[in-house]
Formats: sequence, C-alpha cells, structure tokens
Amino acid sequence: MESEYPSQLLDTAVQQMSSLPGIGKKTALRLVLHLLRQPSEDVERFASAMTRLKNEVHYCRCCHNISDQEVCSICSSHRRDKRTICVVENVQDVMAVENTGQYSGLYHVLGGVISPIDGVGPKDLQIESLVQRVQTEDVQEVILALPTTMEGDTTNFYIYRHLQPTGVKVSQIARGIAIGGEIEYADEITLGRSIQNRTEFRA
Amino acid sequence: MESEYPSQLLDTAVQQMSSLPGIGKKTALRLVLHLLRQPSEDVERFASAMTRLKNEVHYCRCCHNISDQEVCSICSSHRRDKRTICVVENVQDVMAVENTGQYSGLYHVLGGVISPIDGVGPKDLQIESLVQRVQTEDVQEVILALPTTMEGDTTNFYIYRHLQPTGVKVSQIARGIAIGGEIEYADEITLGRSIQNRTEFRA
Repeated sequence: MESEYPSQLLDTAVQQMSSLPGIGKKTALRLVLHLLRQPSEDVERFASAMTRLKNEVHYCRCCHNISDQEVCSICSSHRRDKRTICVVENVQDVMAVENTGQYSGLYHVLGGVISPIDGVGPKDLQIESLVQRVQTEDVQEVILALPTTMEGDTTNFYIYRHLQPTGVKVSQIARGIAIGGEIEYADEITLGRSIQNRTEFRA
Repeated sequence: MESEYPSQLLDTAVQQMSSLPGIGKKTALRLVLHLLRQPSEDVERFASAMTRLKNEVHYCRCCHNISDQEVCSICSSHRRDKRTICVVENVQDVMAVENTGQYSGLYHVLGGVISPIDGVGPKDLQIESLVQRVQTEDVQEVILALPTTMEGDTTNFYIYRHLQPTGVKVSQIARGIAIGGEIEYADEITLGRSIQNRTEFRA
C-alpha cells in the first residue's frame, strides 16, 4: 500500500509524533503540520530541547529525581528537613507534593511500582537505595505516597518489610474523601477507609 | 520565581512541547517524561524526524502540496484528470478528498484563507499561481472546497472574480445534510441550503 501521506518525510514525522502516549494519527498530523509552519530555528529549538533533555539530564544521586546537577536542589537545600523521606512513584508526584507547599522533607523517587505483569520487580526500582539511605543517614520517618493500586500496595508492603529491621517509622499518606467532595457520591472503599482512619475533631 | 520543574532542561523541553497547539503544560510534561524514558536513539529519531521534515520537505511547484519531489506524485501522475483542479485550504484537506477515492483531478493548496483579522491577504495565499495555472494549462473546471466560514466565503468570491476573465467553469462542493444525518437535528442553515440546492431524484 502507498503511504497515506504525500511525503515520506511527513509520514515519518507523523509516525514519530504518534508514538507519544495519547497522540493519535490525526492529532500527530496536526502537530507536525503546525511545526512545519514554524520557522526553522523554532523547529530546531523544539528538537534540540528533547535531545538535550535526554542526553544531558541527571538523576539525583540521593533521591533519583530529575536534576541538572548530580544532587538535586531539594536534597542539597539547607532548609529541608533531612529526617523525613517521602517515597513516590515518579517525578510528577514530587512536583505534586511540592506544589502543596505542605512538605519540607526529602523525597525518594522509585521510578515505578512493583508489577510482575509488566515485568517490573523490586530490582528495577530504587528500593535498595532507599533502604541504604535509611541505614546510613539520620532518617526518622519514611512516608509512603504510592498509588492505591494492587501494585502500589505490593510495593508499600515490600518497602515496609525491608525497612522494618532499621526501626524507622513508616507512615503512609491519608486516604479519604477529598476536601469539598460529597459523601453521597464517594466510592464505598474510600468512604470506608475514611471512617476507619478518622481523626480527632479539633475545633 | 523558581522554575516549577526540578531541572532547567526539563523546563525547556516542557515549554517547547506545550508550544504545540492543544498541548497544555500537564500533557507536555507527560509526553516529555515519556520521551525521557525511551532509549537515546529513539529520542534522536523523534527529534530528527521533525527537523528533517522542516529542512528537507518540498512544496509541489504546481499545486503547493507537501511533497518529497519538486512536483508531487498527484501532479506528476498520468492517471489524474488534469483538466480539473480542486482548490483546498491545506494539506489535510487534500488527504481528506483523496481518502474518498471519488476524485481523480488535481489540487491547488492555498495555504490558508483570506482573513484580514489574522493579517492574511490574497498575496499570502497561492491564488495568483492558481490563476496562472488556469491561464496556461488546459483547465476546464475549478472546484472550490474551502470552509464555509466568512473567511472561506470571502476567499471563494475573490478567487471566482479573478478566474472569471479566463472563462473557466467554477463550481463548489455540495453542502447539505450528511449521509446518515438526521434532518430533525440538522442546523437550519445547512438544512435550508440542502433544500435550495436539491438534486434530481434518480431511482
């Protein structure tokens, strides 16, 4: 079959663009044709931003978050509480917690969760290095902030078991009805959990 | 203010990605982090597909469609009816008409429609070259397939006026209720137009 595009170069560009998650062929075509309408320098800048990120980005030696230096700005900050580590799945989760402005401790980015179906085992994640951090640094509390999926729960449990010998306090973020969420429309599991884990009322 | 991303490289990449139309900051971050998880060669391939398209693509000398050669495969084909030219706004429209399999003539890609608000005048479009084609080639019919917007109508009229002296037949694609479309839910303008432009019933 002939290509459905009038040009092989266009075909290749659309194929590449539609390899991104959630970008279908039609959207890819629209994005590529948009790029094509921009000046050469802009397209060059677009392309080099992607390759530079891939080739030059570092992962923080301590917490494995994305960083421009060997140690990220959070780990190297003097204003962060180094006795608390929040364990998250990925880089976006760090940003989400940072955006709350409610957390001043450090992070540990696992790079995923244990998922045998996807072939992701504990060795593929930054769990070993987390245990090491707890053993060698003055860590008092590890906060688990992983997704509430089967994989997240498995990972929570795995980490918990490996941290137990160190005696560190292990907690997990509160799950419950969202602020402003209607009780009437909450799912049963969340509502059940929010009753079990009720907190003392303070006026 | 500090960047909201842990890395300047990431910041730049997200900014570039979100410059694409319809891609917000969150989606851009997701796409960029996806790229970051791919092998270097894949990111290289992605980036070079975009720059190669921009730097190496040609626009057909006759119809101004995207092409790998100086003259596109449609214009250079011996199986196309060279007496009919379908005028469209952009490359996607060529593909849409081609996909119907109902048209065997040539195209003429204007590269937009006349839109004074956006600063697009007739000189910014391939209208002059269309008139020239009609004057110098053996063209019998020009089919206007531009959008039914104020800008599309303006462009239609402008082209019509400039083609009139050549004596070529100028037609436009039929507008009406879509095949399978419910009359009950059709908008009044479309329904009105479909009654005005009714065609003879053939059993």
